[in-house]
Amino acid sequence: MTQPGKVCLIGAGPGDPELITLRALRMLEAADVVVHDKLVSREILNMVRPGCRMIPVGKSPKCHPVPQDRINDILVTEASKGHTVARLKGGDPMIFGRGSEEAAYLIKHGIAVEYAPGITAAQGASCVTGVPLTHRGLATSVQYVTGHRQADKVLDLDWKRLADPDTTLVIYMGVANIGQIAMGLMTENLPGATPILAVSRATTPDERRLVSRLDQIATDVRDQAFKAPTLFIIGKVVSLCADRAIADLIDPVKAHG
Amino acid sequence: MTQPGKVCLIGAGPGDPELITLRALRMLEAADVVVHDKLVSREILNMVRPGCRMIPVGKSPKCHPVPQDRINDILVTEASKGHTVARLKGGDPMIFGRGSEEAAYLIKHGIAVEYAPGITAAQGASCVTGVPLTHRGLATSVQYVTGHRQADKVLDLDWKRLADPDTTLVIYMGVANIGQIAMGLMTENLPGATPILAVSRATTPDERRLVSRLDQIATDVRDQAFKAPTLFIIGKVVSLCADRAIADLIDPVKAHG
Repeated sequence: MTQPGKVCLIGAGPGDPELITLRALRMLEAADVVVHDKLVSREILNMVRPGCRMIPVGKSPKCHPVPQDRINDILVTEASKGHTVARLKGGDPMIFGRGSEEAAYLIKHGIAVEYAPGITAAQGASCVTGVPLTHRGLATSVQYVTGHRQADKVLDLDWKRLADPDTTLVIYMGVANIGQIAMGLMTENLPGATPILAVSRATTPDERRLVSRLDQIATDVRDQAFKAPTLFIIGKVVSLCADRAIADLIDPVKAHG
Repeated sequence: MTQPGKVCLIGAGPGDPELITLRALRMLEAADVVVHDKLVSREILNMVRPGCRMIPVGKSPKCHPVPQDRINDILVTEASKGHTVARLKGGDPMIFGRGSEEAAYLIKHGIAVEYAPGITAAQGASCVTGVPLTHRGLATSVQYVTGHRQADKVLDLDWKRLADPDTTLVIYMGVANIGQIAMGLMTENLPGATPILAVSRATTPDERRLVSRLDQIATDVRDQAFKAPTLFIIGKVVSLCADRAIADLIDPVKAHG
């Protein structure tokens, strides 16, 4: 009789292979099969042992992503054969990663699930720019929100609740809707001069960033052709940006002081 | 002439030594001096190379913590001697870690700063319980808030903004004030039956947890003598708690279905 397998839900972190945890590395090295998203870097995929089978299921420009139902089936099928399956996702599987949807399906089918959390994109963007997510006197809390909407739906966010000058607001998957997001926040009295940091592919060789203001970000993102995946950090903490050239843009006094 | 040193601001993660990143490990192994908080586990402190000097600066029940000004001085002094200094903090230094305050002081004094982000306590609690921080249909965002107040001050939180049934609310450092927090949220119409998970020292051998409801959490935490550090996760996602015995408490239908 086949011994039951299991699925390890693994956070691959923001991109830099050095930013995965020791547990994620151990689980990857032990896997018989790796089911991975598109955003996971080649260096991380190369950490598996020889002979490990790789099943890509993520989106890429030229091919359709594997539907979620099909991913669920692959995970159950492989684990049911007795395999140790690594389900590898960018960031943290429990933050905008649908990891818990997959876990619920697996548990329902009697498959054991283990977790390795990951550094989420907000933390990756923070560590490369020096912009903290909280800071005494500037932000007493931080909120992660998704800026993605389904193709035929309106972006339905509670602008009044989100427009808090004392909270750092982090927008995941929002590059297509950043103009609407900025407008919504300004309508609820978040100042147009509020600094905003955009970081695309933080911690990877393709990383790009810009610092702007809420009332200019839509233009800047369009002019500089930022594409998904791009993360936005909005709030007073952005004024601490370690990148001097960028920081001067939002603090002309400091620039000429 | 002495070569300039540097300070590496390192997140030690929630407790389990396996949950630090590869970068954190590399920086620790390269350090001449480690300046560490109390909550960092012995196993992680043992990862340093032989001869590395250890400077504890955190709080413990029997001794006063080193004041922040003094910590800043230690970091500048050690780095100025040409040392590679590891500043090791629980969780992520950029989330309620005062890492950015230390970084600002160091940069002002011409000391180079590098970062290694860490798995924050919310992610640690999530991975040991299976409770996600976001989940389609249950929580479209997650907010981290500190429940700590200074000794002589009122806990000044914007309950109206925080009482959002579609956001997962994570309270750091809130065990002393959880009764007041629950009351504030209920006053703004978050239902008393909203599930809440308390996790103390998640991912360590001393971990303790309980699942309760917003209208009972203060009593439960007191009766079971939860102490700091305890983290609270509030919201519908808690209904996904993988701990069956606990999950049944908040879903009697499932328990007898």
